[in-house]
Amino acid sequence: MSSADAPRVRIPPPSGVDALEAIWTTRAMRRLDPLRPVPDEDLRLILEAASMAPSGGNSQPVRWLVVRDAELRRRVGEAYRGVARRTFLTNYEEAARKDESVARLLASALHLADHMGEAPLLLIPCAPAGRIRIEGAVFPAIQNLMIAARARGLGSTLTSVHRDDEQPVKDILGIPADIQTFAIIPVGYPRGRWGAPSRLPVTETTYLDRWGEPLPRP
Amino acid sequence: MSSADAPRVRIPPPSGVDALEAIWTTRAMRRLDPLRPVPDEDLRLILEAASMAPSGGNSQPVRWLVVRDAELRRRVGEAYRGVARRTFLTNYEEAARKDESVARLLASALHLADHMGEAPLLLIPCAPAGRIRIEGAVFPAIQNLMIAARARGLGSTLTSVHRDDEQPVKDILGIPADIQTFAIIPVGYPRGRWGAPSRLPVTETTYLDRWGEPLPRP
Repeated sequence: MSSADAPRVRIPPPSGVDALEAIWTTRAMRRLDPLRPVPDEDLRLILEAASMAPSGGNSQPVRWLVVRDAELRRRVGEAYRGVARRTFLTNYEEAARKDESVARLLASALHLADHMGEAPLLLIPCAPAGRIRIEGAVFPAIQNLMIAARARGLGSTLTSVHRDDEQPVKDILGIPADIQTFAIIPVGYPRGRWGAPSRLPVTETTYLDRWGEPLPRP
Repeated sequence: MSSADAPRVRIPPPSGVDALEAIWTTRAMRRLDPLRPVPDEDLRLILEAASMAPSGGNSQPVRWLVVRDAELRRRVGEAYRGVARRTFLTNYEEAARKDESVARLLASALHLADHMGEAPLLLIPCAPAGRIRIEGAVFPAIQNLMIAARARGLGSTLTSVHRDDEQPVKDILGIPADIQTFAIIPVGYPRGRWGAPSRLPVTETTYLDRWGEPLPRP
């Protein structure tokens, strides 16, 4: 696209949520209010936020499929449920017996598996299948979308377990064979509270100058 | 990690930059001031922002390698330069002759290729090699880091072209064989201005309910 054709992008009015607060408190919101719809202007806003993410050579390969129709959401939710329950139980059921935080995570993930189709919106990021390193354009867009949603009071979750068998979801939504899905992101007003997630301290996840050299503590 | 061991995460003081402004204006900053160092507290802040991103089962697989030593930066910059120049010229030189916006992008990318090693910090996100769908944990963390950097007045760029031949970079920094690099992110104070990048309108990149069905215009 030449610069002459490019529409001017306008920065939206402030959300009232500081950038750092939004980043720190965009935790996975797996329990959403099924009865409170997402305003159209907020849907557009978070999709535009997604589009602000970088892509190689500004190629903008991501396309979003917004599932709002109740019957289609129900069917996508059913397709998600089977593969998600199986994956979550396989991965976490044993650990959950020994670790309370894993048990809470598993309960929350199973809630999501059972209720995915009830979220007011399901957002599915798509891009051409088999293109090398395309995830580097898709997932920054997803993160932008989730932070912008948080800034507007909307909860979301990034889940990709349906990719073990994405064909049922593609069939329901008419997604062509040469297009790949990367996630299903339920969006709606959260039932839980915003808050920072539990994470390792950066001194345990960062090296300075050479692999294995710890970052000095402050 | 059990919840009992998990340190409480504290939300940092406000940056003064609204979440939406940060998302909209985090454009690629390929020209950085080589002489103005990044404060240690800002480095820690943006790394912690990265850690807030989601990962499957909260597995937190990303490790960051911060390259601050001038000689190591120079050597990583040299390794980047060759592969980056070659890639950018192959991909964009022909299109740049016909399209002014591509020409500007190419000039900016070549500047980055030639000056990568002069950025005050090079941040390299790493994770175990060959693990399926791990990009879904790496790139949301990268985007968080870049938005947090923007909120603190720091510019950055996401570039991954060195992955065509990452071994020289791994050798310089002692990165083990079973660890993969995903990007090299130069961080510093930008010479350019913050502003929204040129992007397609949402109505051209979004479908409603079924692939190919346009999102209605507002």
